[in-house]
Amino acid sequence: MPRRTDARERTIRTAAHLFQQQGYHGTGLNQILEESGSPRGSFYFHFPGGKEELAVEVIRETSREVEAAIEAASRKARDPAAFVRKLGQFLSRWFEESDFTEGCPVAVMSLETTPDAPALHAACREAYDRWVGLTADVLRRKGGSRPEAERLATLILCAFEGALALGRARSSTAPFDEVARELAECLRLASPARQG
Amino acid sequence: MPRRTDARERTIRTAAHLFQQQGYHGTGLNQILEESGSPRGSFYFHFPGGKEELAVEVIRETSREVEAAIEAASRKARDPAAFVRKLGQFLSRWFEESDFTEGCPVAVMSLETTPDAPALHAACREAYDRWVGLTADVLRRKGGSRPEAERLATLILCAFEGALALGRARSSTAPFDEVARELAECLRLASPARQG
Repeated sequence: MPRRTDARERTIRTAAHLFQQQGYHGTGLNQILEESGSPRGSFYFHFPGGKEELAVEVIRETSREVEAAIEAASRKARDPAAFVRKLGQFLSRWFEESDFTEGCPVAVMSLETTPDAPALHAACREAYDRWVGLTADVLRRKGGSRPEAERLATLILCAFEGALALGRARSSTAPFDEVARELAECLRLASPARQG
Repeated sequence: MPRRTDARERTIRTAAHLFQQQGYHGTGLNQILEESGSPRGSFYFHFPGGKEELAVEVIRETSREVEAAIEAASRKARDPAAFVRKLGQFLSRWFEESDFTEGCPVAVMSLETTPDAPALHAACREAYDRWVGLTADVLRRKGGSRPEAERLATLILCAFEGALALGRARSSTAPFDEVARELAECLRLASPARQG
């Protein structure tokens, strides 16, 4: 049933754009239906749980895209410093292509929701756990020392998520570039000292 | 006119809490009026520009609080590594006191709004510019080298803003603690290498 799948994916894609631009609460279901061209009946067929279920799917789709970006950056880098520069380039390019108006739906939804929305809250937590875990694996594979890998991965993810907030406010990729450069320098300096 | 000032400040404080918990768009004016106990007429007397003007005041008030935290952390630290640990402790404590449901209204508003809301966008940019500038000044005063101070300050601010997103998703201060620890280690390692 390719057409049904298309409609579902188009709805997820439309919602991802809107959530990133104006937040989860700022995006009404009517706007999502209108911009994705989905009839209401078809929407509830695909997402019986409504907007919150759709948002969970947006987070899962984003999670897969970021995981792919982490793996792609890893394949192109021979050490942790090169990896973080490459990841910064991917994220910076995504951000620039959206004309500085999008970024990461997980960041905005984490900040907009509390544990009162348990499905959203859990989906955000799972996405971050996967990204940190995967990044820590890359750092270990590239020769970073074991005990710090998880904390360094947390720093890297936090720094890029924060670069989005500063980048949005400045309509600029400069925060990504500066963060990537400084993180790479930290990793370069940390590497011999910590492995010794 | 102390009572008028009280009402204005109470409205700003109430809105700050609500924006942090549920975002700018997720917070209706009616909820702000109800929870702050402000009559509608008094609200428009203080904020003729409505919710957007109130949000700009929330951002300015937050900006002053964060500037005070940066200065306080600076007073208690003798080097850049101690400064970043101390700043992380302040931010982590604020976050914990809100039961992991608040953080920084500037972060969520930056991510929810585009340049279509020019007053909000400008207020977020000004807050970040001030925090980065002030942090860079502290790094220079504490002996960090000049050319990197601005980029390191950007990394520090981005990392803590991102720690909020991860901290919210995990209902935990651990991201702040990990970020502060790793940043301090970066600053410690960077310091002799860069000043040489």
